[in-house]
Parts: sequence; C-alpha cells; structure tokens
Amino acid sequence: MRNVFYLSITLIVTMLLSCSETTKKSAPNKESSSMEEGVLMGFLGDRSQQQQELETKFDELLSAEEMGEWMKRLAARPHHLGSAYDKENAYYIDSLFKSWGFETKIETYHVLFPTPKERKLELIAPHSFKAKLKEEVIPGDPYTEQTDEQLPPYHVFSADGDVTAGLVFVNYGLPEDYKRLEKMGVSVKGKIAIAKYGRSWRGIKPRLAYEHGAVGALVYSDPQDDGYGQGDVYPDGPYRNSSSVQRGSVTNLTVYPGDPLTPGIAATKDAKRLKIEDAEVIKKIPTLPISYEDAQPLLEAMGGPTAPADWVGGLPITYHLGGDDTAKVHFKLAFNWDLHPTYNVVATMKGTDYPDQWVIRGNHHDGWVNGAADPLAGMVAELGEAKAIGALAKQGLKPKRTLIYIAWDAEEPAMLGSTEWVEDYADELKEKAVAYINTDGNARGFLNAGGSHSLEKFFTQIAFDVEDPQTGISVGQRSLNRQTVNRGKKVDTFRIGALGSGSDYSAFIDHLGIASMNLGFGGEGVNAQYHSIYDNYTYFSKFLDPGFHYEEALAKVAGRTALRLANADILPFDFVHFHQTVERYANEVKDLADDMREKTDFENQLVRDDVYKTVQDPLKKMKTPEEKEAIPVYNFDPLDKALGKVKQSAQGYQKVFSALDGQEDQQKIEAINRMLYKSERYLTAAQGLPDRPWFKHMIYAPGFHTGYGVKTIPGVREAIEQRQFDRVKEQIELLSETLSKFSQYIDQVAQEGK
Amino acid sequence: MRNVFYLSITLIVTMLLSCSETTKKSAPNKESSSMEEGVLMGFLGDRSQQQQELETKFDELLSAEEMGEWMKRLAARPHHLGSAYDKENAYYIDSLFKSWGFETKIETYHVLFPTPKERKLELIAPHSFKAKLKEEVIPGDPYTEQTDEQLPPYHVFSADGDVTAGLVFVNYGLPEDYKRLEKMGVSVKGKIAIAKYGRSWRGIKPRLAYEHGAVGALVYSDPQDDGYGQGDVYPDGPYRNSSSVQRGSVTNLTVYPGDPLTPGIAATKDAKRLKIEDAEVIKKIPTLPISYEDAQPLLEAMGGPTAPADWVGGLPITYHLGGDDTAKVHFKLAFNWDLHPTYNVVATMKGTDYPDQWVIRGNHHDGWVNGAADPLAGMVAELGEAKAIGALAKQGLKPKRTLIYIAWDAEEPAMLGSTEWVEDYADELKEKAVAYINTDGNARGFLNAGGSHSLEKFFTQIAFDVEDPQTGISVGQRSLNRQTVNRGKKVDTFRIGALGSGSDYSAFIDHLGIASMNLGFGGEGVNAQYHSIYDNYTYFSKFLDPGFHYEEALAKVAGRTALRLANADILPFDFVHFHQTVERYANEVKDLADDMREKTDFENQLVRDDVYKTVQDPLKKMKTPEEKEAIPVYNFDPLDKALGKVKQSAQGYQKVFSALDGQEDQQKIEAINRMLYKSERYLTAAQGLPDRPWFKHMIYAPGFHTGYGVKTIPGVREAIEQRQFDRVKEQIELLSETLSKFSQYIDQVAQEGK
Repeated sequence: MRNVFYLSITLIVTMLLSCSETTKKSAPNKESSSMEEGVLMGFLGDRSQQQQELETKFDELLSAEEMGEWMKRLAARPHHLGSAYDKENAYYIDSLFKSWGFETKIETYHVLFPTPKERKLELIAPHSFKAKLKEEVIPGDPYTEQTDEQLPPYHVFSADGDVTAGLVFVNYGLPEDYKRLEKMGVSVKGKIAIAKYGRSWRGIKPRLAYEHGAVGALVYSDPQDDGYGQGDVYPDGPYRNSSSVQRGSVTNLTVYPGDPLTPGIAATKDAKRLKIEDAEVIKKIPTLPISYEDAQPLLEAMGGPTAPADWVGGLPITYHLGGDDTAKVHFKLAFNWDLHPTYNVVATMKGTDYPDQWVIRGNHHDGWVNGAADPLAGMVAELGEAKAIGALAKQGLKPKRTLIYIAWDAEEPAMLGSTEWVEDYADELKEKAVAYINTDGNARGFLNAGGSHSLEKFFTQIAFDVEDPQTGISVGQRSLNRQTVNRGKKVDTFRIGALGSGSDYSAFIDHLGIASMNLGFGGEGVNAQYHSIYDNYTYFSKFLDPGFHYEEALAKVAGRTALRLANADILPFDFVHFHQTVERYANEVKDLADDMREKTDFENQLVRDDVYKTVQDPLKKMKTPEEKEAIPVYNFDPLDKALGKVKQSAQGYQKVFSALDGQEDQQKIEAINRMLYKSERYLTAAQGLPDRPWFKHMIYAPGFHTGYGVKTIPGVREAIEQRQFDRVKEQIELLSETLSKFSQYIDQVAQEGK
Repeated sequence: MRNVFYLSITLIVTMLLSCSETTKKSAPNKESSSMEEGVLMGFLGDRSQQQQELETKFDELLSAEEMGEWMKRLAARPHHLGSAYDKENAYYIDSLFKSWGFETKIETYHVLFPTPKERKLELIAPHSFKAKLKEEVIPGDPYTEQTDEQLPPYHVFSADGDVTAGLVFVNYGLPEDYKRLEKMGVSVKGKIAIAKYGRSWRGIKPRLAYEHGAVGALVYSDPQDDGYGQGDVYPDGPYRNSSSVQRGSVTNLTVYPGDPLTPGIAATKDAKRLKIEDAEVIKKIPTLPISYEDAQPLLEAMGGPTAPADWVGGLPITYHLGGDDTAKVHFKLAFNWDLHPTYNVVATMKGTDYPDQWVIRGNHHDGWVNGAADPLAGMVAELGEAKAIGALAKQGLKPKRTLIYIAWDAEEPAMLGSTEWVEDYADELKEKAVAYINTDGNARGFLNAGGSHSLEKFFTQIAFDVEDPQTGISVGQRSLNRQTVNRGKKVDTFRIGALGSGSDYSAFIDHLGIASMNLGFGGEGVNAQYHSIYDNYTYFSKFLDPGFHYEEALAKVAGRTALRLANADILPFDFVHFHQTVERYANEVKDLADDMREKTDFENQLVRDDVYKTVQDPLKKMKTPEEKEAIPVYNFDPLDKALGKVKQSAQGYQKVFSALDGQEDQQKIEAINRMLYKSERYLTAAQGLPDRPWFKHMIYAPGFHTGYGVKTIPGVREAIEQRQFDRVKEQIELLSETLSKFSQYIDQVAQEGK
C-alpha cells in the first residue's frame, strides 16, 4: 500500500530521517561496521560465529530466480481483496509455507470492502466532456488486458454521492493550501475540490476538502510529479502514462486503520459492528482518483484567479483556482457496501528454546490489481526467507525463538488483515511478541529502513553485513555514501527513520507498542505505476528490478533481522540510541514552538503596522492577513527531566548489557530477555493520542493531518502545530509520564542483569 | 532592452541585492525617512525648502494622461533601428524637447546592424516538421497586424550558417549545465544546442554552446518560465502565447557593448572599422530564438537520456538530452550585414551656475517591434520630466548645473547609441559628467533601483519622498515593506542594487566610471511579452500600467534625482555606504573562496574513497567525478588593508560634509564639488578587467559568463569562480591599489573642505 520508493521527495525525506541531524565530523563511527570484528550484537561467546555460519547457509539457500518465478505466479491475475485470485494466492502461499515445514493456518476476518457500482464524471459547462475513468490496454503487456478481473480506479471508503457543482483547484489539498486559498478569496464551500496527488496521504485530501465545505473531491496524478515530467511513460519508460490512475484507500487511517466497522476489536463473523453511517473513518463526500488525461479538460475549463506559481503542475495549461461555476461538473458515485472475507496466511516455525517469544515477519499478498512491485516484491523476499529457514530447520538449525511468517490479506483497503489479526490476538501479542518486521514492495536501489529506535544499533550491524548486489559494498555503506553525496557532507552514522503509517506494521507499533521495523530497497527502480493496472510482472521485471537481485538482498536483510532476533542470547535492544533520537525530537518541537511564536509575533506586528495591506496588489482581491492569538511560552521542564532520566537508565542498562559474557546464570539472562522485549510497550499510554485513542504509542504516529508521514512525539508536536495551547501542556505531561515509566522499567531490566 | 520586470526570480534577486545582508534588529534606520525633517542631502540652509517647493511644482506639471498619449504616438508602428518610424520618432522627440526650451541635436553614428535575409529551421528526422518562426496576429490588437514593418524574430549578431545536425537540450545553457551534461555523458560537439531562455543573458547561451563545440544554437521561451505556466497568455492575460518569440541581441556585451566594428571608439562615418570576421563579439555559429510552439516538436522528437528533474520545463513531454541523431534538424540563417545610421536625441538645458557640470538623463527610444513597455514606458517618464523642467525654466527656475536629457537610439542591438556617444565624448564626459540616470521600461508595482553606492544615501531620501500611486505610502517604504514580507523579517534599510549590464548606463559606469543610477517600477505589471510583437500599446495599457500612474511616479523619482543633483549646494555623494557595500562584497568572495576550497577538498576525498562510484546507478552511463586541483588559500590582506583605509577616508569626508553649513567660502564648496563627482573615476583601472579591457570599473561589471547580471568586484570574484589561482592574486592587488587611490582621493576632497 505504501509507496516509499516512488517520488524522489519521499526518498529525500526518508534519507533525512535516516541520518542524524548533527553528523559528527569525527572519524567513522564504529557502529558503521560490525561493532567488534566478528561479534554480533546480542550473541555471547562463540555464538556469534555460529550465527554467522547459519547466515552464510541462509544466503546460499536464497534464489533470485525463484523469487522472480513466485512473483510471476502470484501476479498472474488481479488479486485484490474479494477476488478469486486473492484467495487462490493465499492458499498457494499457505501450501508453500507448509511444504517448507511451517505450521500454517489461514485466518479469516469479515471486513467492509465497498466496490464501485457506478462511477460518472462529466463536465457540463462551459462545454461537455465525459471522463473515461479507464486505463488503456498496452500492446505487449498481456496483464493490462485482464479487464474483466480488474477493479476500476476508485477510492475505497468514499461516500456514495451525486453532485453537480463548480470546481476548486486545491493544489495538494494540504491544510496550508486551504489557508492560501482563503487569502486568495477562494472557497471550496459547495464545490468539488480537485487536488494533485502527493505531499500528503490520499485519504487526507477528501477529508480536508469535506471539512472546508466541499461536496466532492477528485484527486489526480499531475504529470509533473507523476508522469511525463519525471521521464518516459509506460511502456517506453517506467513513468505514469496519461490514462494510469492511482487507486487507493481513503479511510481515515490516522484515526484508526482496519475494518471501519470494528475499531479496536477483531472483525470476526459475530463481532459487534458500527452502522456504516456511524463509522467516522468513512468519507462523507464522494471522492475519486483520476488520470491526468481526465483531469486536464476539467482544469483547463476552470475560471477564477490564476494559481500561485508553486501550485502549477505539468499540464500544458494555465492552472486556475476556480471557485465559480465557469467549469461545472456532474459527479456520481455508488458502491456495493459488502462485507468480504480476508485470508491471512500465518506460518509458524516454533522456537526450540523460547516458543512463547515470537518474532513476527510480514508482508501483504493482496494487490490493487496485479500488484507486482506493491506488494509482491516484498512478499517474494519473505517467501525466500521462509523457504531457507525451513531448509535450515530440516538441517537441525531451528530458531531458538518462534518465527511467525505472515502473508497479510486486505492491506490495500486499510491494513484490514493485519489490524484485525493484531486486535484479535492483542493480549497474546502483548505478552509474546518480541518484534515485528515488515516489508511492502521493493525495487532496485538503496536500503530504506524505518523502525523503533531501540533496534537502531542492532539493525545498523545488519545493514553493514549485507552486500549490495551492484557495487559489492554493504547496503548500509551504500546508503551512507548516498547521503554523503546528496548532503555534501560526510555522513558516518547509519540512522533508521521513524515509522508513520501505510503498511502492516501500524497495528503492531502504534496500537500495541511492539518494536517494529519496516524495510525495503528502492530509488533506482521506481514504482511509478503505483496502484495502477501497469504495476505488473512485465513492468516490474523490465523497469524495477531486472534479475530480482534486490528481492534477494531484501531477504538477506529482513531474514537476518528475524534470525538474529530469534537466536540472540540477549535480545539486542539498545536505549542509548533511542534516547538520543527522542531528545532530538524534543529539540525539534521546542524549536518549532519558538519559531511559531516568533513568526506569529512578527506577523501580528506587520498586521498592526498595515505592512501587508501596502504590499498586496490592489488589483487582486486578496484577503489581508489578520492578527492571530499570540503563542505562550510552553514549559518543557517535565520533558527535559524525563529525558534526563531516560538517558541515565539507558546508559545504566548499556553497562549491564556490555558486561554480560554468557557465563551468567541462564535464568538471569532469560529474565532480562523476558523484560527487554516488552520495553516498547512502556512507550504507549492507555488513553492514546488526542482524538484518536487507537494510537497509543507516544513517540511515533502518522500525522493526523498529513497521513502516512510520521509525526514524532505526536501528541506534543501536533498540539503545537495546531495552536492548541492547553493541549500542549497536557501532552507534555503525558509524554513525560510515559518516558518516566519507561525509564523506571529500563532500570528494572538493568537491575535483573546486575 | 533589459527586462528587469519580468521573471519573478529576477525580481527576487533584485530585492535581495537591494537590501542589506545583515539587516539590523534595531529601531527603524533614520535613513528610511528624510534624514532630518525637511533637510535634503546636499542642500544648505533654506535651499532645502526652495528645492522642495520646486519639486512640488515639478510634480504638478506631470501628467499621466499625456505620458499615455506619447506612448501611443511613439508605439504606433514598429520602431527598431533602421526603420522609418525609428527615425520619425527621433525627430518627433527632438521637436518635443525643442518646444520645451531645450537646445537639441540629433547625433548620428553608423553601426553594424545585421537583419535577416533567410531563416529556416526544420526537423528532418525522425519525421519532418517546419518551424513557423512567425508570431500570430491577435484579433483586436491592430499592432500585431503591422507585419510589413516588423523585423521577424531573430538574434542580432548571430553568424550566417547552414547546418544539419542532431540536437542537445542544454537546459539554460549555463556553465554548470555543460558540467552536468558532461557528467551524464552527453556532448554538444557537432550538434545544435537548444536552450531555454532565462537564468543568463541570451548572448551567453550561443557563446557557451560554441565554446563547447556546438554548430548552432536555438533559444526558446519555455512555457513554465515564460508562458502559460505563469498565467493566462495574451490576449486573455499578459503572459507569452505559444507563437511569441523573444528577439534580441547576442553580441558579447560582457566583452564590449556598442558597435562590434569600432570597440572603444565612436562609429563615425570615417572611423577605422574591424572586419566583420575579426569582431570577437559577433557569434561564430548561427543562433535563433524560437517560440514554444516551434520548440515542442523538436524537443519531443529527441532521444538520449532523460533530462534531470530540475531541467524539466512546462511542455507536455518528457524532456530528453539528445546527443544522438534521433532528432535531426536542418538550420539555415543568412543576414544582410549592413551599416545603419543611429539617431540619438540630445537635449540640453544649460546650468545657470555650473554649465560645465553635466547631469545626464537617458532612456532609449528604439524598440524591438512596437516596444511599449520596453523602452517607451521609461521614455515617456523622461519626456514628462523634460517638459516639466522646461516649464520650470520658463518660470525662471533653471537648474544650477546643466541637465542633458537624451533619447538613445539603437539600444536593442547592443546599446549602440549610448556606447558610441560615450566613446565619442569620452574626454569631455570624464571632465564634466556628474552622474548618469537611466531608465528603460517600466510597469505598475515596486521601485527597483540600482546604481553607484556613493549615491545610495542620496537616493534613499528620494525613494522616501515620492508617494506610491496605489497605497499612499512612499515608494521606498513600499519596497521595504515587500522585502519585509518576502523575507519574513523586518527590513529597515533601503539598499540599491549593483549594476550589471543590459541598458544604456553601461558605457557611463563601466567604461568611464561615471556614477550612475538605473530606475524603474515593476512586479505588479509584468512585461511578459518582452521583445515580441505583443509588447505594444494595447498590451501595455491593458496589463502593465492602466492609467500610466507608474510612469508618472517614475518621472517623480528620476526627475528628483536629476534636479537634486543639478541644484545641490554640495553634491550628495557619500562614501560610508559605499565602503560598507564593498566590504560586504569582499566578505562574499572570501566566503566563496573558502566554500569552494572546502567543497573541492571534500569532493576530492569522495573521489579517492570511491564514494561517487558506489552511489551512481550502474545502469545509467554516468561519468564518475574526477579529482580537481586543490584551491590554495588566497591572501586577502592587501584588500583588507585597502578597505580599512577606504573606511577611514569615508568617515573623514562624512565629518567634513556634515560640518558644511553654507557659510563657507563659495570657492571652497565649488572646489569640493568639482572633485566630488569625479570620485567614481578612481574606481576604474586603465587596463580594465581581464580579457575585457573595455570594462574599467573595478567594483561593478556584468558577469563575463552570465551576462546582464552583476558580478561585484568582478576581477577577483570571477578569477575565484574560474579557479584561475594566479589571477586571483593579481586581481586582489589591482583592486586593492584601485581602492587605495580612491581613498587617497577622498582624503583630498575632505582636505578641501576643512
């Protein structure tokens, strides 16, 4: 579902997230390579060497070619939730896991999944034009011909509707875009908003349009961002062609993901369900994704003021804001509001020593259409890992902890498969889940890794232990090298990004506080046909990763992550990195608050001095800015204090961890481990985040107003951003309390180890 | 000729230039308003009040309506150099000046002005397409129908040529664009370069193409920068329509402007002329400006690698770099290489007290076609000033110093009229010229002022004394307010920009060292039809300044500048501002040198560490960067010392200036004045700048490799930029010597005043 590999801007953000803000000028960080030559974090004595030997065998069992064949098989027909082939794939994957020696089961939930009954979009003034709403067949790409099985382009969880209204161009449909429209005197009230894809998650766009009074929403892929402006379009090149449409979910997944009718509980057959009209995550207005060939005639016909220069896209027209009825549209949508069964494939390889400690690895198997890059490129890596793990087990090399390999269904509509499963097994997972390792799509290029910062130090070692298929250096070093070149200064320290949302890790980390990782390669192969009929095997094997070498590399990275967590003597959690990272977040929000306060004071002064009034072009009808409420000085002392305590506790535990040499009482080590992996749970708060109690993690969450993108220490940050002064105080206190409890817990872990 | 009002980026640069780098946080600078209430800089005792009364009368004599009528008359037919109407306009302007009481003469030089005999551009592979090379008639705009008198779109001083070759897209055709092409493995050798207009002066583009081996050059207006991407196109809005072409000169005016055949001397009938083939400023390859409707089929047909994302323009295609023969073009140009007479109109109002001290005011009268915004919007302001000055003189209010009002001919091809005149009268001008005040086009909006920094303090007062026609605050305050809003911090100090080239001030300041100012309004009205048939009266009066209020405002600003310089008791030169500014330039080049050194060392290290190699996409044929020669530490001590001395001298003179109260011996004051206005001459060096001895000013010059845009302390700056290590040393010494002589001269001025 998540398209982390597509837009260069996304990649840059990811790159920025994954490296320290304050890169040291000193000599290369020791963490850049294996910490101590030959010593794996968490492995004591000669266990490091044993594990490395196991990993060598593991690598030898992987086959890029076989991964390509699995992809071809799984992507052969459209396999969205509810399709025949989705179910067929689930049973096929189940049979594979089983054949490799896993215990398997297919677990089913019953989720709301509306599909289109009627879609109509036509310009009725100033002239008539009927949108095609259809992707073209490409000669030479047989998958594009499977029109009978394809779901047409639509937004799942749109409202039904039939509206006739004028248009307003809202740029990317972000909160700041609406502020700008207001200044320019243009309102979406009673109009249909037309937004570009990008900069925020698609589900946010119709939500904000609705909140500003729009009666409908259209979201299109502008060719500048996502089409010929990026490069040659399919089939000449990988980029989005004129009829291609990005389908996708528009549920409010920043409020809660999963089945809209069963928030917080599993969507079992008999679960108590909300009425559809009471499910707040379902859109209240009709919304539809369209291609740029359908968008152009609408945009071209619009009147109203000229769009600001930085809103202009790549169509050969002057972009106008509309707001009048120059261009009038008739827009009708109707859906079948049915429940559908989901098929999660859950494969277990029981741990020899600690069967009740679960290392969980997942990728979804449902696609929007033929879904090759998304999700199968990640799925085939997972299958490769499972096959190798099965073969190792047959050689007697079974994992010490239980490995659970899962192929999720129904990720695309709203992470339905994973969320319902996590809600179903919540109590057991809280008790047993060591970590969750997610992938979701993949392509040729650079390693992107996000996750819990308590795993950053551990994961860094893995990134430096896996070789890049093209250059022969490690994938970690290649990622650092790119950051060094892009930023124009030496980047020595490998950093993982923080997790937002948009893939199956969300319920694990956000809802239950299970330490999670999300892994993938990309940037050279570019999934520029994201959620269209063109993301298929023909496309993937030509443009995204010919030879499937990066799926093999992903299996090496994700497999090592799973195997080391499964076999470690001491679970490789580290809280020093975690503290540094959270301290950085705290500094960011302090700076944010100061900047906002300073800017507000400055702008208020300009309002009082009539400066804006004299600068505006009197021939344009612009709204002069008004004074805003001054921003108070927030008291961050409780947070500083709590962070100081976390630092002490982290360092205290680090000493204990470093001193363990394997000679200790096995019971002592087991006690530490049992406590360690639950540490992430202490970063959650029972009441959850404001306005979205399902989100319980106090450090990471997707942005309430932005979607997939992460907001770190979200309670505090979003309250500051939204100028909710009282809430800032309340959230600083809640975060500080949470961190205090966390540090007390780390102290207890350390105590066990003394 | 210069289009300072067009692109927003140009405006931003101008804004940045016109304000201090280090804006103070303190209370509003006193210079923001009249220095002392009612006291005009340079006026002693009650002379301030007399001058203000004179200016009030002057303002009352101005008429926006009349300026509109003059524009309509002068823009009625195409009036380029060599046209019947150009000559007719000269005689009409002459008659106006004469009727207002000026002594006038029309001065004629004989300059090379090639006009097109044949223009042919056609795609011959992969399919055939013949470029129209023609601008469309617009119904309702009668001026566009005057096709018999229009010069077609072309580059004056292109070579004749007939070439058939493949194309290379070179972005804006800047030095860094060629570096990037080299990295991407694409060469223009033997090819035709196709460049976008913008970012550098047009004449630089074919020059760099030629230097890199191209056999021809095409320059087109990309619709993103200069067309529908900016707003509605003419006639719906002001922006460039699909057939509109920016004509213009491509002489190497950064080597020398004026007649290509008579560098440094006047192009009189009998002047010794270079052979055309020996004139280094004439292009060596054929070059042609084209419209975006002609460019699109060429660009669309090109093969080769995809252009980098930041090179992509607004056409609905994927931009490719070419470099192969996928798209092949036949391109033929032939010119009539004739001499033409120029008609400068020189109108003199003799000074009552100091007839041999000349304040010169000029704007050109020739246009590329009907030339309304460029140049007539400035010309009609100048006419308004002259009429008012004539009327005041008839009331007995004659200027103390001589005012020379000039309407230049032949500015468009290469500032031919002004350059030849300045070269003709060089000795007399060095002796008599107090200052030169230039305008060239105008539109509704914000004041932009550039010039000699010795006039900055003086001019600031004028900017705060003239009222903005739309807001009622001063034009200086409105300009500051805009900077405050755009930069998000309070800007208190009015700064003028430094002068590059592209208008008639060049010979005055760059060649002779005559203190100059260039003035204009713009930013709300936008001349987006620069150098096309659409820049005409219909267009101007609809989109650029309906009501002609900003032409009247320009007359108030430029007229005050002329009148105060003509009537001041002590000429209002100030060297404290000048010192501050030059010190800032020195700091900029020091930082530049440090940044380049650091960057080179860093990049060399990455080359040695194979970092680039591992980051490049192995499937793309990119050239891996190689090590560059390390940059030495330059010795700036001589410059620092010289600047320290300038500071002392400037402060010393400031004390003397402040102490003068009008009671002094008149002879003493006269002696100071005679010296003062020549101070700018001491900023020149006889040998001029490296590779372009015509440019003698050591503080300001147009960028050798960029064109119109200024390079301050150009000898040092360009040597650093070009990595000419020995030349840096030599130029630091030359600059330091020049500044030392300058400060000695200021000391002498101060000595006179004691």
